[in-house]
Amino acid sequence: MTGIRVGYIGLGLMGAPMARNLLKAGFSVVVHNRSRAIVDQLVAEGAQAATSPREVATQVDILCTNLPDSPDVETVILGKDGVVEGARPGLIVIDNSTIKPETARRIAADLTPKGIEMLDAPVSGGQIGAINGTLVFMVGGSTATFEKATPLFEAMGKSWTLVGESGAGQIAKAANQIMVAAQMSAMGELLVFAQKAGVDPFKVVEAIKGGAAQCWTLDTKPPRLKEGNRQPGFKARMQLKDLKIILETGETYGAPLPLSAITADLFRQMVEDQGEGELDNSAVLSVLERLARVRVGK
Amino acid sequence: MTGIRVGYIGLGLMGAPMARNLLKAGFSVVVHNRSRAIVDQLVAEGAQAATSPREVATQVDILCTNLPDSPDVETVILGKDGVVEGARPGLIVIDNSTIKPETARRIAADLTPKGIEMLDAPVSGGQIGAINGTLVFMVGGSTATFEKATPLFEAMGKSWTLVGESGAGQIAKAANQIMVAAQMSAMGELLVFAQKAGVDPFKVVEAIKGGAAQCWTLDTKPPRLKEGNRQPGFKARMQLKDLKIILETGETYGAPLPLSAITADLFRQMVEDQGEGELDNSAVLSVLERLARVRVGK
Repeated sequence: MTGIRVGYIGLGLMGAPMARNLLKAGFSVVVHNRSRAIVDQLVAEGAQAATSPREVATQVDILCTNLPDSPDVETVILGKDGVVEGARPGLIVIDNSTIKPETARRIAADLTPKGIEMLDAPVSGGQIGAINGTLVFMVGGSTATFEKATPLFEAMGKSWTLVGESGAGQIAKAANQIMVAAQMSAMGELLVFAQKAGVDPFKVVEAIKGGAAQCWTLDTKPPRLKEGNRQPGFKARMQLKDLKIILETGETYGAPLPLSAITADLFRQMVEDQGEGELDNSAVLSVLERLARVRVGK
Repeated sequence: MTGIRVGYIGLGLMGAPMARNLLKAGFSVVVHNRSRAIVDQLVAEGAQAATSPREVATQVDILCTNLPDSPDVETVILGKDGVVEGARPGLIVIDNSTIKPETARRIAADLTPKGIEMLDAPVSGGQIGAINGTLVFMVGGSTATFEKATPLFEAMGKSWTLVGESGAGQIAKAANQIMVAAQMSAMGELLVFAQKAGVDPFKVVEAIKGGAAQCWTLDTKPPRLKEGNRQPGFKARMQLKDLKIILETGETYGAPLPLSAITADLFRQMVEDQGEGELDNSAVLSVLERLARVRVGK
């Protein structure tokens, strides 16, 4: 259907549905993943399997990576049997992972002399967004590369914004997570606050959500918390990983982050001390519930 | 037009337009204010002047108060020449001020034996909302009193929610301000973070505002900051006052407030150290700009 041959490396909770949407859009898709089960599944749906990132790179025009953290992306792109070993000039690499902006910038700088074009393009929208093809892409890189990659964004997302040069997509994602972590933590604070003061926390949310406090977080999370549903959504351990990236990046660029230092500590307590990293990020209120000896919702 | 005689005490930036909307709705309105100019203005528009809160109370069925802080409300209602001295059983007092929930509860408890009904009904929506009659009322008190007061809420607001018993309206307002202060501070953090990392902060906002970070704050404030407009809106010194109420209330009820402790400190620095209490609460980013030696927007 389309002449662009695409690759997808990293078929996790996000990567697999994103690769599937590329297939559905008619692309010829070559996939690679460390564990094999999901590869077989996508091959059954029409993808071709490759045994290494290098082998993906030899067969495609544009490839996407979607990996847990900065070192994984470095290894897959620059390491042994990595993308760079199989790439020819003109290959476009789109990294959909959420990693350190400096790492994104360094990888792009390493690829440029080889004629490989790189976009950092982390996403917001969660697994639901990945499945439904309604992700929001925050992109860093050149305008020309961004335009060439647009057919892929169209297949996987609902919006894509070129924020700036390499790393700018990761900076935007970090900025997004500064706000999300603050809203999740503030929601936890206000729910526990109301409960301790003897007022129904969910009536409080009803009263305030139409005013200046309005946010996606208050619109979507309280009904689930009220029912005692703290399943992800977006896992707390991923929120913590992103907050660590934010704090390191703030250190690198000299940006003061007093609020994110606190939200990172709340998520650290939730994930590391309480062992609740697999729960939804909205469940960070459990740190405050423990201190206050209350339970909000069922 | 309506048989209910109403009073309004405290004709400040919020109180004056709220009293005006009661007049426009056809109520007979008796007003009182410490300084006289605004009283004369409202008299010219059809209100009657009273020389003390006591005198207002003798002439009306329902009266509203709208005063800067907790001690002002106590004095006006319970003090010498106060409301309580002129009140007869059945009088309804609606306090639209933002004050300590404990103070609201104590005043209500003092009035109950005298047959005076009290609602704490702080508002969200700012001066614009007061002028346009689109305020959001968060109400604490009895259902019967709430229902009797509804014609006044209709004249001044777009929504009114009975959150719970006395004090619950103030708890909801405090909860609202926990979230608003967190969003304003997080927005400041992410704007300064982007700028320090060499990325256009307002492009970042464009990229993230449609995702999980979406909030009224990100929807409305960045265009003003981009143009260098830091005029209120909602004054930073009022945000600080509200945060002090939140922290004291958390202390009273044993609610942990790690995030609000930080946002209160940011607003304290802005208001007390930098002398910027008359600016908009979104201008709290100036504390971070000073640390980072940058300016966001014009």
